[in-house]
Amino acid sequence: MSNSKDAVRKILDAVRADKRTSLTAPEGKVVCDAYGIPVPKEGVAKSAAEAARIASDMGFPVVMKIVSPDILHKTEAGGVVVGVKSAAEAEKSYETILANARKYKADAKIEGIQVQQMLGGGTEVIVGSITDGSFGKLVAFGLGGVLVEILKDITFRLAPATKDDALSMLDGIQAHEMLKGVRGGEAVNREALADVIVKVSQLVSDFPEIVELDLNPVFATSKNAIAADVRIVVDFNYKPRPAPRPTEEIVAAMNRIMQPKGVAVIGASAEDGKIGNSVMKNLINGGYKGEIYPIHPKADEILGYKAYKSVKDVPGVIDTAVFAIPAKFVAGALAECGEKKIPGAVLIPSGFAEAGAPELQAEIVEVGKKYNIRLMGPNIYGFYYTPANLCATFCTAYDVKGHAALSSQSGGIGMAIIGFSRSAKMGVSAIVGLGNKSDIDEDDLLAFFEQDPNTNLIAQHCEDLKDGRAFAEAAKRVSKKKPVVVLKAGRTSAGAKAASSHTGALAGNDKIYEDVFKQSGVIRARSLRQLLEFARGVPVLPTPKGENVLIITGAGGSGVLLSDSVVDNGLSLMQMPPDLDAAFRKFIPPFGAAGNPVDITGGEPPITYVNTVKLGLSDERIHALILGYWHTIVTPPMVFARNMVEVKKEMEAKGFVKPIVASLAGDVEVEEAAEYLYQNGIPAYAYSTELPVEVLGAKYKWARGAGLL
Amino acid sequence: MSNSKDAVRKILDAVRADKRTSLTAPEGKVVCDAYGIPVPKEGVAKSAAEAARIASDMGFPVVMKIVSPDILHKTEAGGVVVGVKSAAEAEKSYETILANARKYKADAKIEGIQVQQMLGGGTEVIVGSITDGSFGKLVAFGLGGVLVEILKDITFRLAPATKDDALSMLDGIQAHEMLKGVRGGEAVNREALADVIVKVSQLVSDFPEIVELDLNPVFATSKNAIAADVRIVVDFNYKPRPAPRPTEEIVAAMNRIMQPKGVAVIGASAEDGKIGNSVMKNLINGGYKGEIYPIHPKADEILGYKAYKSVKDVPGVIDTAVFAIPAKFVAGALAECGEKKIPGAVLIPSGFAEAGAPELQAEIVEVGKKYNIRLMGPNIYGFYYTPANLCATFCTAYDVKGHAALSSQSGGIGMAIIGFSRSAKMGVSAIVGLGNKSDIDEDDLLAFFEQDPNTNLIAQHCEDLKDGRAFAEAAKRVSKKKPVVVLKAGRTSAGAKAASSHTGALAGNDKIYEDVFKQSGVIRARSLRQLLEFARGVPVLPTPKGENVLIITGAGGSGVLLSDSVVDNGLSLMQMPPDLDAAFRKFIPPFGAAGNPVDITGGEPPITYVNTVKLGLSDERIHALILGYWHTIVTPPMVFARNMVEVKKEMEAKGFVKPIVASLAGDVEVEEAAEYLYQNGIPAYAYSTELPVEVLGAKYKWARGAGLL
Repeated sequence: MSNSKDAVRKILDAVRADKRTSLTAPEGKVVCDAYGIPVPKEGVAKSAAEAARIASDMGFPVVMKIVSPDILHKTEAGGVVVGVKSAAEAEKSYETILANARKYKADAKIEGIQVQQMLGGGTEVIVGSITDGSFGKLVAFGLGGVLVEILKDITFRLAPATKDDALSMLDGIQAHEMLKGVRGGEAVNREALADVIVKVSQLVSDFPEIVELDLNPVFATSKNAIAADVRIVVDFNYKPRPAPRPTEEIVAAMNRIMQPKGVAVIGASAEDGKIGNSVMKNLINGGYKGEIYPIHPKADEILGYKAYKSVKDVPGVIDTAVFAIPAKFVAGALAECGEKKIPGAVLIPSGFAEAGAPELQAEIVEVGKKYNIRLMGPNIYGFYYTPANLCATFCTAYDVKGHAALSSQSGGIGMAIIGFSRSAKMGVSAIVGLGNKSDIDEDDLLAFFEQDPNTNLIAQHCEDLKDGRAFAEAAKRVSKKKPVVVLKAGRTSAGAKAASSHTGALAGNDKIYEDVFKQSGVIRARSLRQLLEFARGVPVLPTPKGENVLIITGAGGSGVLLSDSVVDNGLSLMQMPPDLDAAFRKFIPPFGAAGNPVDITGGEPPITYVNTVKLGLSDERIHALILGYWHTIVTPPMVFARNMVEVKKEMEAKGFVKPIVASLAGDVEVEEAAEYLYQNGIPAYAYSTELPVEVLGAKYKWARGAGLL
Repeated sequence: MSNSKDAVRKILDAVRADKRTSLTAPEGKVVCDAYGIPVPKEGVAKSAAEAARIASDMGFPVVMKIVSPDILHKTEAGGVVVGVKSAAEAEKSYETILANARKYKADAKIEGIQVQQMLGGGTEVIVGSITDGSFGKLVAFGLGGVLVEILKDITFRLAPATKDDALSMLDGIQAHEMLKGVRGGEAVNREALADVIVKVSQLVSDFPEIVELDLNPVFATSKNAIAADVRIVVDFNYKPRPAPRPTEEIVAAMNRIMQPKGVAVIGASAEDGKIGNSVMKNLINGGYKGEIYPIHPKADEILGYKAYKSVKDVPGVIDTAVFAIPAKFVAGALAECGEKKIPGAVLIPSGFAEAGAPELQAEIVEVGKKYNIRLMGPNIYGFYYTPANLCATFCTAYDVKGHAALSSQSGGIGMAIIGFSRSAKMGVSAIVGLGNKSDIDEDDLLAFFEQDPNTNLIAQHCEDLKDGRAFAEAAKRVSKKKPVVVLKAGRTSAGAKAASSHTGALAGNDKIYEDVFKQSGVIRARSLRQLLEFARGVPVLPTPKGENVLIITGAGGSGVLLSDSVVDNGLSLMQMPPDLDAAFRKFIPPFGAAGNPVDITGGEPPITYVNTVKLGLSDERIHALILGYWHTIVTPPMVFARNMVEVKKEMEAKGFVKPIVASLAGDVEVEEAAEYLYQNGIPAYAYSTELPVEVLGAKYKWARGAGLL
C-alpha cells in the first residue's frame, strides 16, 4: 500500500500547492486507482487494431473519443462514438472518428483515440465519506437517485470499516431489497460493493485531510461495482482529535476516584442547606468507611471531622476532592489539589460553560491538565458508588446495592434515576453526574465499569458525545462483556436545538448516532423510562442461548399483543415443532390453542401454568419465555407469582437457565405479584404487554452484539 | 353520471356474459372515459391535415400508427412514427406512413392513421382500488416504480373518497416530497391527481363487482394526470356487507341494555365461586338501583331476591339478561328472552366460536335475529356502567365514576383495564367486554357512547373489526364530538397469526387500519399502556386553541428530552417572539435559557415556576404548556405541585384555560406530587419525559381530527 499512499500524497501535495480545496476528476481517478477503487477503465489507442484490443480487454460496450489538443468540441467534430459493442465495431469506429476529425480540422494534432468502459445498468448506489466533529471519519452508503435523497435512506459506519461492517451497511438501508435484484433485475455483487466501501474508508483514514468524498453514482452489477464519478474535498487544516488516553491510565485514575482511601470536601460546611453540608452528611450517613477531610478556610472541625484550610494541609492520602465552592474559586483550589497529587476532582459547582462562562471552564481544564487531575463535571450532582458506600453528592443518600451503573449528563435526569431506582428497588453500583464534561466523559466511565466487578450493566444518558469516536471504540470493546445502554437526547431537530442551548454542544445527525451505536454494540433506549427499565431488567435476565421465543399465556388477548411486541422488538416467535405442540396440548384444555402463543385459557388452575412453563424451560429448543397472566379466582396473582418463582428455581437447579419475562393483566393485586416476580428474577409488568418484551428485546440485542447468539 | 353508469354497465354485462373475470384494455379505457379518468387521447385521421389537427388538439408529442386490418405488423410495415412534435411533422408523418404502407402491401385496406397522445415525463404514480373483507372498497395511492414496491409506500382511504381525502393521500406517503418536484423536476398538478383518485373511488363504489382496479402507471405532470394502463378485475358474486343498523335503532336498544330498569341473571347462584353468584353479588354490591331477577330452575330465592324459573315468569320489565349458564343451554334461554321481549343479552359463557364450536354461535345469532335481541359476547366478562352503578360482570365490582368508556375484545385486557383504572384512580363511565362479537360490536358502542352524557372519551381494544366500514363511519362521526382511541392488536404478522388462533378472525393489512383510523379521526394507541394512559389523560385536558406548545423546565436535561418527545408526537415547539422571550427573561436567572424550552434552571424557588407558568398561561400566543420539574430542596415536589394547581385555578378563573402536562424528575416524593397534579387536571408523570407529551399529543391529534384546530 505504500506505493499507493505515495501516489495519493503526490496528488494531495499538488492540490495543496495550488491552494485548492478539491480534486479534479482526473486527480480523483488517480486516487481511486491508487486504492484499487474501480473506476471506468480507459486507454488511448494509436491504431484501429489497438482500439479493438483495448476495448476487448475492458469488455463491451465502450465509448470512443478523439484525443487532440486542437479539437475542443469532440462531439461537434464527430469525434465521439458511444455504445461500441464489438471488436469489429471498435475498428470501424476508430477509422470513422479519425476520418471525421481530419475532415473537421485537417491539421489537428491527433494523439490517438481514447477507449473508455461504458457504464450503466445494474443498480446506482452512493459510497461516500464525511468528517464529523465528534465521530471523525465516517463512511456512508446509500442508493442513488431522487427517492433516496428524499427518504434519506443512508447508513454510516466509523472509518476504517471492516469487511463485515461494509456488508452490514448493504443490509442497513431501508430499501436493501433493491440490492438483491427485483423485478428480474440482477443482484449486486456484495463482495465487490463492500470492497469499495472498505477501500474508501481506508483512504479517508490514511489521509485525514480528505474531509469529504463522494462516489456518485457507483454502478453495482452482479459482476462489479464501478464509480462513475468521484468528488474529493480536502481541508489541509483539518486536525484529527488527539488519541484518547490509554485505557490503563483511565482505569488507574478512575479506580482511585471511585473507591478513594480519603475524600476531601472543599467548601465543607456545618450549616444546613449548604451544598458543602449536604455532601458531608451524605458521605457520613452513606456509610463511607474511608477518611473524610472537610476543607474550610476557618473552621477547625465540621460535623465531628477535623477541618483543614487546604488539601495541602491534610496529612493522609486524598483520592477524591469534592468541590462545593463558587465557580470563581475552583481553579485556585484545584491547583492545590494538583500539588497534593489528588487524582480526581468532583466539580459540583455550576457557573461555567453552561452559564456563559466558557473562560472559567477553560481555566480549570488547563489546571487539570497541568497537574493530571481528572475532572468530573463541573455543574453536576456528584456521584454514588455503592460498593464503597460512597455518596459524593449533595442529593439524598442512596444505598440500594446492585449491579447497574448509571450516568447522566443532566442533573435533572440524575434525580430521575435516583427516584426511579429507589421506587423500583433497583440496586445500582453507581450513579454518576457528568454535567459539562470538561474532562471525564462517557468513555472514561465505560473503561472503569468494564473492569469493575460490581457492575454488570452500564446505562448512560447523554446529550452529546464530545469524542464520539473514543466512546464508540470503548463501547465496542465493553459491550462484548457487559450491556451498554444509551439514551441519546436531542435526537430530533427540536431536541437538538434545546441541547445546544443547554450545553453549548452541537448535536450531530441522529442517523450517525443510530448507526455508530449499532456498530458498537450499544443498546439504544428510546425514552427515559426505557433507559431506566433496561437498566433494571437486563441484568436480571440470564443470557439466552438462541432465538426461539415462546409465549405462554392465560389471556388470549395478551398473547396477541405480546406477539405484536415480539415483532416490534426484533424477536422471533419460535415455530412450534409438532412433537412439542403435542406435549403442550397434554396440559391445556382442548379449546386452548397450542402453537405459539401457547394459550392455556383463562380458567386454568396454577398447575397448568406450572406444567407448561416447566416444559418451556426444560425443552432445549426453546430459549426464552414470555408469560401472559390473567387474574382469575382460580389462580390469584400472588399464587401465580409464587408458583412461577418456584418453577424457575426448581428448573435452574436442574441446569435449565433461561430468560423469563411476564405481563400481568388483572386487578390491582397484580402489582404486588409483578413486584415479587421482578425481585425474584422475572421482569414483570402490570397492565403492559410491551414493557416486558422490550426488556427481553434489549437483552437479545446485547447478546447478539456481543456475539453470544 | 347516469349515461356514464350505463356505459360501464354495458361493458360489465359483456364481461359477465363472456364469463370473464377481467376487462380488456379497450374495455378498461371505455370505463375510464365514462368516469372522466384521463387516459391517453387518440383519434383516427383520414388525411394529413386531419392528423395535424387531431395532434394539435391533444398536444405534442404524439405517436402515429397505421390502422389497417390487413397490416398486422405495423412497425415492420413502417407504419409507426413515435415522438411527432409539431403539426408539420404530423402532416409529413401521415404521408410517410401511408407511402410505407402502400409499399408494404399495395392492396391493404387502410382505414386511416391513429394519432395517440404520447405519455412520459412527470412522475409515475399508482392509483388503484382493492376490496377488503372488513372495510369493503378502498382506494389506494402510491408512487410508481421499484423502490415503492419494496418500501411499500402506499396509502389507503375508504371509497368513495372526498376531494380532501384524496389530497390527504398525496401527503400520506413517505416520499410525498417527490410530488412537489425535486432536482428541478416539476411539481405535479395536485388537483388533477386528486380528481383521478376521487373518480376511481366513485367508480368502484358504484360498481361493487369491480373488486380490483389498477391505474399503473399514471403519469402526473404539472398539467395533468393520465393513466397509461388500466387493469380491472371483477367478481360478479361479490356481495357488499348489508348496511349497518340505523343509529337510532342501535341507540334505543343500547340505552335500555346499559341503563336497565330490570336485570335478569340467568343461572344465578347462591353458591360462592360460581359465575352466577359473582354476577348477583356484583349487581347487589355495586349499588344497582333497578330490579334484580335471579333465574334458576329450582330456587325460590337467591341472595335475598325472589328467583324465577324463566324470564317469562318475571312480572316486571327486563332490559338486560346476563347469562351465566353453560354454552349448550344459551340458545334455549335466549329464545325465552325473546318471548319476554328483552332487548339485550350479556353472554358471559365461553364455549362458542373461540372454542371450536362455531355452530353453537351461529345458533344463538339466529335466535338473536329472530327476536331482535342484541347480543353482547359470548365469551366475555360482562360490562360495567358506572352512572347506573351497574356491574353486570363476574369480575370484581368497580365503582370509580368518571368519563372514559373503555371496551376490550379480550377478557384479559378487560381485567388490565379494571386494574389500571383502580390503581390510577381513573374514573370510568363504562368498561365493556366484547369477546366473540357475535353481534354487538365496537360501532354499536360508539353509537351509544356518542350520545351518552356521562362519557367524554371512548377507548377500545380490538383484534379485528368485523365490519370495519361501519366502525369507520361511526368513528368519523363520533370523533368529531368525543375522542376515540383504539388499540388494534394483531398489528404485526406474528401478532396477526396469534389473533387468528384466538378469535378465528383474519386480521387485515395493518396499513389499511392505520390509514382508515386516520381518515376517521381515531387516535391510535401503540401499546396497552398507551391506550390506558390516553383514556386517563385525554379527558383531563382542555382542548388547545392552537398549535403553539411551550416547555417550561427547571431541568435543562428534561427540556431536551421533552423537545424530542414534542417532535415524536407531532407537536410544534412555539417559535418564541422577541417580546415574549424578554418577558420570560425577567423571571429567570441570567444564565437560564429563554427561547423554547424556557429553562428556568434548577436552583429556583417556587415563585419562578409560578411566574413563568402564569405568563405561559396568560399570553394568548401560547396554546399548551409542558412542565419539566426538577426536585430540589428549594422547591420540593409537593410545593411545586400545589403551586402549579393554584396557578392553574387562578388563571382558569380569569378565563385562561389551556392544557398543561408535567414531567417530574426527582426522588420518590415526586410520585405523590405527580398523583396530586393528575387529580387536579395536570397529567403528570414521574421519571418520564415521554408519557406526558404522548398524552398531550393524543389530545392534539383528536382536536385536529375533529376540526377544532
